[in-house]
Amino acid sequence: MATVRLLTDEEAARDPRVAAVFADIRATRNTDFINNFWRALATQPELLESTWARLRQVMAPGALDPLTKELIYIAVSVTNGCSYCAHSHTAAARAKGLTEAQEAEFLAVLGMAAQTNQLVTALQVPVDPEFQVQT
Amino acid sequence: MATVRLLTDEEAARDPRVAAVFADIRATRNTDFINNFWRALATQPELLESTWARLRQVMAPGALDPLTKELIYIAVSVTNGCSYCAHSHTAAARAKGLTEAQEAEFLAVLGMAAQTNQLVTALQVPVDPEFQVQT
Amino acid sequence: MATVRLLTDEEAARDPRVAAVFADIRATRNTDFINNFWRALATQPELLESTWARLRQVMAPGALDPLTKELIYIAVSVTNGCSYCAHSHTAAARAKGLTEAQEAEFLAVLGMAAQTNQLVTALQVPVDPEFQVQT
Amino acid sequence: MATVRLLTDEEAARDPRVAAVFADIRATRNTDFINNFWRALATQPELLESTWARLRQVMAPGALDPLTKELIYIAVSVTNGCSYCAHSHTAAARAKGLTEAQEAEFLAVLGMAAQTNQLVTALQVPVDPEFQVQT
Amino acid sequence: MATVRLLTDEEAARDPRVAAVFADIRATRNTDFINNFWRALATQPELLESTWARLRQVMAPGALDPLTKELIYIAVSVTNGCSYCAHSHTAAARAKGLTEAQEAEFLAVLGMAAQTNQLVTALQVPVDPEFQVQT
Amino acid sequence: MATVRLLTDEEAARDPRVAAVFADIRATRNTDFINNFWRALATQPELLESTWARLRQVMAPGALDPLTKELIYIAVSVTNGCSYCAHSHTAAARAKGLTEAQEAEFLAVLGMAAQTNQLVTALQVPVDPEFQVQT
Repeated sequence: MATVRLLTDEEAARDPRVAAVFADIRATRNTDFINNFWRALATQPELLESTWARLRQVMAPGALDPLTKELIYIAVSVTNGCSYCAHSHTAAARAKGLTEAQEAEFLAVLGMAAQTNQLVTALQVPVDPEFQVQT
Repeated sequence: MATVRLLTDEEAARDPRVAAVFADIRATRNTDFINNFWRALATQPELLESTWARLRQVMAPGALDPLTKELIYIAVSVTNGCSYCAHSHTAAARAKGLTEAQEAEFLAVLGMAAQTNQLVTALQVPVDPEFQVQT
Repeated sequence: MATVRLLTDEEAARDPRVAAVFADIRATRNTDFINNFWRALATQPELLESTWARLRQVMAPGALDPLTKELIYIAVSVTNGCSYCAHSHTAAARAKGLTEAQEAEFLAVLGMAAQTNQLVTALQVPVDPEFQVQT
Repeated sequence: MATVRLLTDEEAARDPRVAAVFADIRATRNTDFINNFWRALATQPELLESTWARLRQVMAPGALDPLTKELIYIAVSVTNGCSYCAHSHTAAARAKGLTEAQEAEFLAVLGMAAQTNQLVTALQVPVDPEFQVQT
Repeated sequence: MATVRLLTDEEAARDPRVAAVFADIRATRNTDFINNFWRALATQPELLESTWARLRQVMAPGALDPLTKELIYIAVSVTNGCSYCAHSHTAAARAKGLTEAQEAEFLAVLGMAAQTNQLVTALQVPVDPEFQVQT
Repeated sequence: MATVRLLTDEEAARDPRVAAVFADIRATRNTDFINNFWRALATQPELLESTWARLRQVMAPGALDPLTKELIYIAVSVTNGCSYCAHSHTAAARAKGLTEAQEAEFLAVLGMAAQTNQLVTALQVPVDPEFQVQT
């Protein structure tokens, strides 16, 4: 299922903007594999370009290591209920070295956060003054 | 605002289960400060006990360091729109050493994930077979 | 805060449609109190009328008792992170006889459901054939 | 699809902790059927144990009857958009005696709550002082 | 998958209320096609009637044109992560004349809104007095 | 409340990147008013720059008019439960000419979409083949 077509490599090659992004994805990731998100987004070349440019920058190693960034990405994706995103970023986290022990703790934190978020919202707990930044 | 009362230390002292949890929070965190979440949850002693016991276990150092766990916690909390949780866990992350540079990258990942989750859902991208675990 | 004005009784009296709904709310609930949701919705008389008419019908006693309906309402509201709704329907549930023991169990179920929802989504568990209705 | 393997009974038997939980699920529910959630969670024995222990306790009969608890569970699951959870808990509610008439009213409340939550958030209705608990 | 049966035309014909709604959908939309949402909802005749009556009224041309209404509908559906709704309303928007250029901009706004919503929630930005309506 | 400081004009003037964005916001919007979102984001100059650059581009007039874009923005924001965003974009929509009649219909669509999304998810309606794009 999809609400747009997924571009094949042949179709991607016909639009120079799409072709350039696909080439850069392949070079950056050092693999020929282009996953479906980019093939779907390729129906909108401007959005493809701006999304890939930003993603490459945001996910690059920096003050946070790439695996930590993937875990944060999965946390957002799971909470948003995005099935595709959960699949793709879990695969990415494993490719970046996620161990079994880390995955176990990660899942435990995900579940705990969802639970206490729900309780806080049910109880409508007021923010402690100690947690507020002076503005 | 709140949908339940927040227990004062005097009130907490009257219920041995609540008193024990409050004492353990203070000992574990090495501070006298008990934040409002626990004071609200204290109206339900069984829930207070089980939540604190699980939280202490889940957030302890392990295969993932405490700061990484806080970042995952914030990611879930922000995506769930939990204002109290965003405040309390951001404060906790800073107390655990979150640097300015890390916070900048963390926010960038949070925003990027929300954006691509939304695009994936709008496009209804099918999961690549490469991302699926054989079951 | 609000994105629309909240109508006073004087202002409500000027529009016959709004006046009629306010009168019906008071008669149905046997109280003079009109809560802010209706005062805000009163800026849109058609929406006020259709929402009140439907709510009165849906929340009336039937195969499910009124308290059970309120608990379901709170469950949706808390999961949606709707602060006003959590406050108003928790107050309504208490007015309809919610006991302390029921509230404790209700909160425990709310938290448990949020936690297992999150784990299911993280693990992307496929639906068992046993749970599917033949179509 | 799934992001982890689903353990077969043979695999479950190899880990004493998993085997014990599976045996307890079967005894508690008086059926040989183990649904996929537990087979997926079985890849993380500690999480399996703690989740099952808590679920069994929370969903046991108490001040709220088991059917009411299932309806609350479905309400959270549907609002979270958890497909698996909607399927499994709807099946559970029916097994616990949910009638056609109750299901009709339940769905009506679910839809109504979602609608008024959305309107309240759009209008940003301020909480009435009458709904606030004195803290 | 579904949690209820999808009614065939033969089954729909057996209940006069369902038959009347199906006939009205066909007349209003000028097509014989009845999509699965209505076939599923037909298991609950009262909910089918009230939902269709309200939808027909709300989506009719008025101060906002039908295409704009569909885009708003998709925006809510995607943000709620409703796969069926994203599919059905995207198809409806295209049937109502959505152009390629409009779709590109629509997707860009969807992604941008999700991103800034997330940043606002992470930063817990207080509402400017200028944005508040005097109440 | 906020989890970061809100930069004053004096503080913004000290960082050339922030000063440049603030100047561009003022020039683009033809007003001296800088709302709190930008003052909070200014604590992260890179994120401020990239967010503003993208927002200015995405919200510019194009195949969709600015008011339609604001309505889509509000729809996402309300569904995400973002209070600040609901306030700021409702104000923006009114500044761009949203009429009372349009606002009434907009709210009706928002509520209707939330309701049918919820019903679709509860019923787990399968996507009709007619709504799927051939891939």
